[in-house]
Amino acid sequence: METRQRVAVIGAGAVGSYYGARLAEAGHEVRFLFRRDYEAVRAGGLRVRSVDGDLHLKRPFAAATSDQIGPVDWVVCALKATALDGAPELIEPCLEEGTRILVLMNGLGLEERFSGWFGARRVFGALAFTCINRGEPGIVNHLRYGPLTIGHAENDPEELAAAERLWAGTRVQVSTAPSLLGARWEKLCWNIPFNGLTIAAGGVATDRVVNDPALRHEARALMEEVVRLGNAELARDGETTRIDGDAVIGRMFAMTDAMGPYRPSTLIDYLEGRALEVEAIFGEPLRRGHALGEPAPRLELMTALLRSLDAEARARGTAEGRRAADAPGVGAPS
Amino acid sequence: METRQRVAVIGAGAVGSYYGARLAEAGHEVRFLFRRDYEAVRAGGLRVRSVDGDLHLKRPFAAATSDQIGPVDWVVCALKATALDGAPELIEPCLEEGTRILVLMNGLGLEERFSGWFGARRVFGALAFTCINRGEPGIVNHLRYGPLTIGHAENDPEELAAAERLWAGTRVQVSTAPSLLGARWEKLCWNIPFNGLTIAAGGVATDRVVNDPALRHEARALMEEVVRLGNAELARDGETTRIDGDAVIGRMFAMTDAMGPYRPSTLIDYLEGRALEVEAIFGEPLRRGHALGEPAPRLELMTALLRSLDAEARARGTAEGRRAADAPGVGAPS
Repeated sequence: METRQRVAVIGAGAVGSYYGARLAEAGHEVRFLFRRDYEAVRAGGLRVRSVDGDLHLKRPFAAATSDQIGPVDWVVCALKATALDGAPELIEPCLEEGTRILVLMNGLGLEERFSGWFGARRVFGALAFTCINRGEPGIVNHLRYGPLTIGHAENDPEELAAAERLWAGTRVQVSTAPSLLGARWEKLCWNIPFNGLTIAAGGVATDRVVNDPALRHEARALMEEVVRLGNAELARDGETTRIDGDAVIGRMFAMTDAMGPYRPSTLIDYLEGRALEVEAIFGEPLRRGHALGEPAPRLELMTALLRSLDAEARARGTAEGRRAADAPGVGAPS
Repeated sequence: METRQRVAVIGAGAVGSYYGARLAEAGHEVRFLFRRDYEAVRAGGLRVRSVDGDLHLKRPFAAATSDQIGPVDWVVCALKATALDGAPELIEPCLEEGTRILVLMNGLGLEERFSGWFGARRVFGALAFTCINRGEPGIVNHLRYGPLTIGHAENDPEELAAAERLWAGTRVQVSTAPSLLGARWEKLCWNIPFNGLTIAAGGVATDRVVNDPALRHEARALMEEVVRLGNAELARDGETTRIDGDAVIGRMFAMTDAMGPYRPSTLIDYLEGRALEVEAIFGEPLRRGHALGEPAPRLELMTALLRSLDAEARARGTAEGRRAADAPGVGAPS
């Protein structure tokens, strides 16, 4: 395996904590930037309950600011896309000559933003196909799956090899994508139907979407739109990669059929009144579809609905928070 | 005006009560079949608060069963479409030779059912473009608009003239439609986008749909699908009527723009956990679109979402009702 690498996990929510913990388990020096879980991890460490083996980092390097982390070899950025604008400030203190940045987030257009800030040469994208939720503070539940697909912002094979080396000694199965853009669109074939429909159909888990014939049909139709948009963009950009729609759609359904009643992170965000990653997962693909002149009626309708649902849920959440804060002896929910 | 007619209003909710009250006001002998409001109307009469003039029927003929109503000249059936299967039993006692039936409900395929039960000769459809809500028991709020468009199941002009005579002396503005099918599809150009999007976008009023550019765009796109399906069915059935899409869509937006924050009845049903008229308003148009081979991706997605939202809301409503019923000293909500 690779020599011991210094890794900063920026945004150690469920996904960042899980993959960071796997890097630490394999011997890398991992420094986590926590927010919600900072106190809990300082007190009791970081626990991962995982189908691939439980893990307890008793005294991980837990930071509350990026300055405490300092320069590293790899930054793994696992912020929510809704916090993207804060990324430069959080990452800057971790950079030195040669630091690479792995964008472990959902959505389209993220690496372009990172490339603008830090130069494409050092930017990678990681796509996690996995079911991970937060438990109590300091605890992460890894329920199913877990492979990472990694691409490079310039699709450089040597850089991809470096990314593979980072993960070589870990329990995480990693593959590389010859086209980061293609991989992003392929991942959207899951996120757009399942993150979207679980929310818009009334707050249901993924099993309801795959077992309800009408919702399953809509999930497939959404995937077909995504494949069409993705291939149109790949063609326009002169890439040779294409998404094999039938194969990808078949694989997405097979994995989701086996998933049971999973609640995607955006559904949990929605139910708990937090901002949704609407623009990264829906808005940006839709904008690209419009720019390409490709119709995507279902994606368009879903995007309009989710933007409204997001605004409504937050207005409600805020109102509830305010009521709770106003109630005697009760604090506002965090 | 017409000689005094005996009229039975079957299903005197907000819409039935309002239009029945206008018939009574004009001198017809109107007998209302109430459910929720029976006791309140017996005690205090029926009050209409209306932009076209308030009205108080102090001692209307208020029945709890159709047998108390007996045979009449006109049955105005204003049941919810979800109660359609109960219509024959409720209407039967009100029929004699020559009784006509005016189906004052939302959705497609209703008159076909009534024609099957009672013969098409006596079946009419009435389309109310109006904003009416229930207030406290015994009170109906008529907020805006109110014209009726009436069609006949066999599009017979003489029968249409009889329907016009019924309403001639009332405050209700009535026009007749040469094609009942065309009029039904035209009405769906409002109900499908606005009943649908107000629910699916998170429980918002109509003003949010028309003022949010993305939702407004989706409303228009849904209308365009409805126009296309409607005209395809009219063409297949050999009717000469066509829906003038631009004119209808322009009119629908103009009326809705002036409507303010209106909550359609299905939105109120949804928020209160009652069954939604999904099949009559969405499912049946979609089935016809499939039969015609016409694509309607947005209608299809909306229908799948609304069926799921309907099931979820009722499950939640039932669970809440059960919890309330289980709570000491608290009855289940009615």
